[in-house]
Amino acid sequence: MLVGVSGGVDSTVLLRLFVEFVERRRARPGAVLAVGHLDHRLDADSAARAEFVRGEAASLGIPCLAAAADVRERSRRERRSLEEAARLERLDFFGRAAAGSGCSAVAVGHTRSDQAETVLLRLVRGSGGPGLGAMPLARPDDRGFLLIRPLLRVSRTMVEALAEARGWPFQEDASNRSPEFARNRVRREVLPHLAASLNPRAEAALARAADLLRDDEDLLGELARGQFSRLARLRETGVQLPREALSALPPALSGRVLRLALLKVRGDLLRLTRRHLAALGRLAASGRGGAALDLPGIRARCEGGNLLLEAVAGKPATPFRGGEGNHRAGARVIRSGG
Amino acid sequence: MLVGVSGGVDSTVLLRLFVEFVERRRARPGAVLAVGHLDHRLDADSAARAEFVRGEAASLGIPCLAAAADVRERSRRERRSLEEAARLERLDFFGRAAAGSGCSAVAVGHTRSDQAETVLLRLVRGSGGPGLGAMPLARPDDRGFLLIRPLLRVSRTMVEALAEARGWPFQEDASNRSPEFARNRVRREVLPHLAASLNPRAEAALARAADLLRDDEDLLGELARGQFSRLARLRETGVQLPREALSALPPALSGRVLRLALLKVRGDLLRLTRRHLAALGRLAASGRGGAALDLPGIRARCEGGNLLLEAVAGKPATPFRGGEGNHRAGARVIRSGG
Repeated sequence: MLVGVSGGVDSTVLLRLFVEFVERRRARPGAVLAVGHLDHRLDADSAARAEFVRGEAASLGIPCLAAAADVRERSRRERRSLEEAARLERLDFFGRAAAGSGCSAVAVGHTRSDQAETVLLRLVRGSGGPGLGAMPLARPDDRGFLLIRPLLRVSRTMVEALAEARGWPFQEDASNRSPEFARNRVRREVLPHLAASLNPRAEAALARAADLLRDDEDLLGELARGQFSRLARLRETGVQLPREALSALPPALSGRVLRLALLKVRGDLLRLTRRHLAALGRLAASGRGGAALDLPGIRARCEGGNLLLEAVAGKPATPFRGGEGNHRAGARVIRSGG
Repeated sequence: MLVGVSGGVDSTVLLRLFVEFVERRRARPGAVLAVGHLDHRLDADSAARAEFVRGEAASLGIPCLAAAADVRERSRRERRSLEEAARLERLDFFGRAAAGSGCSAVAVGHTRSDQAETVLLRLVRGSGGPGLGAMPLARPDDRGFLLIRPLLRVSRTMVEALAEARGWPFQEDASNRSPEFARNRVRREVLPHLAASLNPRAEAALARAADLLRDDEDLLGELARGQFSRLARLRETGVQLPREALSALPPALSGRVLRLALLKVRGDLLRLTRRHLAALGRLAASGRGGAALDLPGIRARCEGGNLLLEAVAGKPATPFRGGEGNHRAGARVIRSGG
């Protein structure tokens, strides 16, 4: 088990709990506990946090794998938000660190509070079911490890109380206080406001909604993948879907099948918004031959009874302009959660 | 078409738009436009509002069906919230008024703003997919009419601007300002806060989420009804479900099948919470013979390979105590939306 430790209270408590668990139960022979820390270099104190994590690991007698990344550069290069670039950089690092330390699973410190924040953030950005399910307790990652979130049912308040009670040290992350990040505004203003104004247990309610919606999404995603396999024909330049069969699907599935097709053609859904998907649905329904729709990195057109989706290099010739939302928000909408 | 008019800006504008529509397009012969108004008697000005609506209808040359109801009494008798009792009283009245005036459809003034408020209210109370889909554009009502919401894609701000521009009079409903009602706090504090802090288009985003989740729910509900028909056996005193087949269903369906069973046995899901449903799921999974679970109005027990749900009169012998949430909030959670 590799424990991803930022140095903040959540992940530090998680590490300490793992250590207690191992000590009490006596880990089975060959079991490995390691610490992974990625220095994102997003604020002046990041080097000090990295030093703190190394010190913690050393005092606990646990190997520590640490690295630093240029998250701002990745954010610019891949045109992703800083938060998203940091998340991907971290996962890439975990993949390397897990492989390097012989760990098959990576544990991260996300709490029920993070979950509630994620639900609310995605909701106000227009997510549907695929996004609102937010973070699962465990999921296999393409990078070759199982990502687990042991604290996902526990409130941050409880984690902080535990750290306090045991006298476990941790580092404040100044970037968690900056109102520059929407997540911090949710954490420090919006959720407290919901709790005060509507339901003191709003955090638990939002996390429960995520659990229920993820159950729903598991089934709907499976049904959609089945329909995609049944309907889609792979062509040299992209994917072909029969328009009539697509339109005959329940709306819950036709939208998801289109997402799967876009994902197949492009490899990701970056910068594709809910509005793009709606325009694509309208094109498929209208079936106007010759009409083409240019989406970021994809050209869609109708040919006979089929909808064709083809990858195009570079920027689209006539950029699509959605009437609502913005591209950054929308790009998150269409992507799957997790 | 019967237009439900409270006298407030939304429904008054809706009525005026219908009148314009009829005048411009020349209604087909036999088409009927009527006004329905129920005086809820919840505040001191309700009689004045009723008088206003009657005057509006008269000046527009449209028949007006009006009645008054004792909503507080119904709220006490049926142990429902005032808001819920008022909603049911209104629908009952619409059923009588539609039948009396020869109308097959009833139009109400709910806007996109109401939709967003509903999503947020249900979310902070722990709803899953069935509740978060909120209000549909149109649905058939058991009371014998089609309920339609022509303004559901339009923001209240736009409705108010239209009333202002055309000089259409309406009545302020003082109860819409009272912070006693959670909905008013959502309207006046929470949604403006979300818009200012996270996304100026939060209202549209929440309404869009509702649309997407309702598409999902349409399919999941249909699948669950299919499974319920396949699995449930009706007995004299209740409903029987085979435990093993129930447990083999995806979680998204097993929960919904249990809801359908509870609905079949009791006629409604009033005072049944998400926690009750979870306890019922655990009982079905554990299959401990003899063990019984008392829910409001229902006794559940395992017998052989089956879960039995039976109606019981009066209060349950050993009231169920959920660990989270409260019964009023929970009762809304488990009920279907609309």
